[in-house]
Amino acid sequence: MPKIAQKAIDMPASPIRKLVPYAEKAKKAGKTVYHLNIGQPDIETPQVALDAIRNFDHKVIEYSHSAGFESYRTKLAETYRKGGLPVNTEDILITTGGSEALIFGFMTTCNPGDEIIIPEPFYANYNGFAVTAGLTVVPVTSSIETGFALPPVSEIEAKITSKTKAIVICNPGNPTGYLYSKEELEQLRDIVQKHDLFLFADEVYREFCYDGAQPFSVLNLEGIENNVIMIDSVSKRYSMCGARIGALVSKNKEVMTAALKFGQARLSPPTVDQVASEAALNTPQSYFDDVVSEYVQRRNIMVDGLNSIPGVFCPKPSGAFYCVAKFPVDNAEKFCQWLLEEFEYEGQTVMMAPANGFYSTPGAGLQEARIAYVLNQDSLKKAVVCLEKALEIYPGTIR
Amino acid sequence: MPKIAQKAIDMPASPIRKLVPYAEKAKKAGKTVYHLNIGQPDIETPQVALDAIRNFDHKVIEYSHSAGFESYRTKLAETYRKGGLPVNTEDILITTGGSEALIFGFMTTCNPGDEIIIPEPFYANYNGFAVTAGLTVVPVTSSIETGFALPPVSEIEAKITSKTKAIVICNPGNPTGYLYSKEELEQLRDIVQKHDLFLFADEVYREFCYDGAQPFSVLNLEGIENNVIMIDSVSKRYSMCGARIGALVSKNKEVMTAALKFGQARLSPPTVDQVASEAALNTPQSYFDDVVSEYVQRRNIMVDGLNSIPGVFCPKPSGAFYCVAKFPVDNAEKFCQWLLEEFEYEGQTVMMAPANGFYSTPGAGLQEARIAYVLNQDSLKKAVVCLEKALEIYPGTIR
Repeated sequence: MPKIAQKAIDMPASPIRKLVPYAEKAKKAGKTVYHLNIGQPDIETPQVALDAIRNFDHKVIEYSHSAGFESYRTKLAETYRKGGLPVNTEDILITTGGSEALIFGFMTTCNPGDEIIIPEPFYANYNGFAVTAGLTVVPVTSSIETGFALPPVSEIEAKITSKTKAIVICNPGNPTGYLYSKEELEQLRDIVQKHDLFLFADEVYREFCYDGAQPFSVLNLEGIENNVIMIDSVSKRYSMCGARIGALVSKNKEVMTAALKFGQARLSPPTVDQVASEAALNTPQSYFDDVVSEYVQRRNIMVDGLNSIPGVFCPKPSGAFYCVAKFPVDNAEKFCQWLLEEFEYEGQTVMMAPANGFYSTPGAGLQEARIAYVLNQDSLKKAVVCLEKALEIYPGTIR
Repeated sequence: MPKIAQKAIDMPASPIRKLVPYAEKAKKAGKTVYHLNIGQPDIETPQVALDAIRNFDHKVIEYSHSAGFESYRTKLAETYRKGGLPVNTEDILITTGGSEALIFGFMTTCNPGDEIIIPEPFYANYNGFAVTAGLTVVPVTSSIETGFALPPVSEIEAKITSKTKAIVICNPGNPTGYLYSKEELEQLRDIVQKHDLFLFADEVYREFCYDGAQPFSVLNLEGIENNVIMIDSVSKRYSMCGARIGALVSKNKEVMTAALKFGQARLSPPTVDQVASEAALNTPQSYFDDVVSEYVQRRNIMVDGLNSIPGVFCPKPSGAFYCVAKFPVDNAEKFCQWLLEEFEYEGQTVMMAPANGFYSTPGAGLQEARIAYVLNQDSLKKAVVCLEKALEIYPGTIR
């Protein structure tokens, strides 16, 4: 039997799925499991997008252009410009989800063996994309005490070597919900400019900013237009994760030309989903207003609820729909497993994603877990009660 | 400005798109261009698949399982079994097109620097996937004189080194249309077994076999169950190229477990398209009978037409909807460009894919071009007339 590749052995299993077998057992045992572990929102997809699918009237489901339908790219560019982002049609490559945009971006800019610096905790699948492209992730640790603000410039610069090719951020952040300020982004701009690096910004949660906070896009950083690659997706914005439509956006012509070659090899992103995504651009502002208002209430229930539990600390994030909380436990992964295996309160329990999977530094985030507040408010309230009751009896609770 | 990666520079541009700018100019100049250059069939997608899209009634377009919907995998496995292929649900990973299945397969089995042996001419995007995975393609040249039959075993074995990890075939073949016999596949089985290699078989054209020829799947080769990885796709079978739904099929548990990790990193294949693909499994046999009958007629028009032109030679393939023809010209790429730039007959011309892009050996296939007979019979007849007239006046015609 031939051996599989080292890369395939190195490829990390998804940390948000690690506990799935325990959750399945819990459900089989009749427990209600509140799924706070995965960013699959319950928010309805905009009607305009669903209608576009139901009205799809082509007789043949044909390939689109490898860069995506031109009509979609043009309309998407217009939407960006309306939002203040200086994007033209030719600056956009439509991809199969933000995932593919990241892979194409890494493949286009980094040679195998190159290093990419990422503030941790970070979206765990960046690890998988790095392994795919043969890259080494160099973490720079942010702290729950500062709400996961950008680590000091000196710490980031200390990680730069001759192999460093890019800095990767997620803004607003998954898993932290932290929204980088303009000043923080300008600090990154200065580093990127000084060391001639690429700056990847995963901005798929841009629409989810709270308490009047405004997202600042890397595309608006002056002087590093050729360094910046913005990653986007319809998944969260329009609650259409299953459409698998994303985008790689850059003013760097060399990057766009090369990325398109990867795009041509895989022929095209999905057609019907692009039609739906183009239609989604007509989603009325009221949809977003309602969604943001809902998420603010959910966040408040969850974060305030968590902070009311003795020993739990959870910074209140300004964006996305995640938070990372620190629990008074020896090991959050064990705690999360115990919640599914051993615990129930009135027939209910909670599934969270242990945060260690979002850190690259061994041992970091051991007491933390990521919570996606993607359930309705009533479920979130019940989940908070579950967590409070659980910590009262969990054998590993530190008192 | 930071430099892009060497890999991105090495990444080949798609040879089937190289001439697109000339085709666009030709169309702007008012010429009718018969597109024989790309495998986008004009055949209608089965109504059951289109209906499934129009009846999509979920309120949220959610992720599917990373391996694809279980209902789809189960039903697909049943369909395989009905066709005599020993496939169970767990042997299938649903991918975003056959393209992703190949990338996952290469990433899972081959380390960067490894070699894969491919009979040439081969589907040009294999080059792109090899670059993506950091692999070296080692071609073994098949000959137009034998209709692109499998090269002798000795020639294949002569290419095997300590770095060889896999043999990759496409059966029936793109670009050749050649259908490997059971005997040829058993020769490959023996090589694979002897040298403990993986055998990738891209079988996306399996439904398109003519003149009573029966496709033999690598999944039915006995004794190399753990070596075989079959690549499939709905693109051609149901004329739904734009759905981007494919599959990686293998009995090798280690391969399946590792490939799923790549699948988890990119979350899921597209949801609506899987729903349509699952519905497509209910396509009545009469659909395929009609399609095959149509392609046989098209093939006969095209291949017989080509062979009736003085100096042109085109073996008659038993499968897929491509053929490779040898033209009496100095350079087929120049000829193809000339057809678009300089030539017209009654306001029409033809676009073909120069075959050199399908060879890895420099200088191979210089007089050949790939033709996809994906247009209606009347257009194909006119295209043949165009080619005949063109060769009469092309300055590079060898008489």
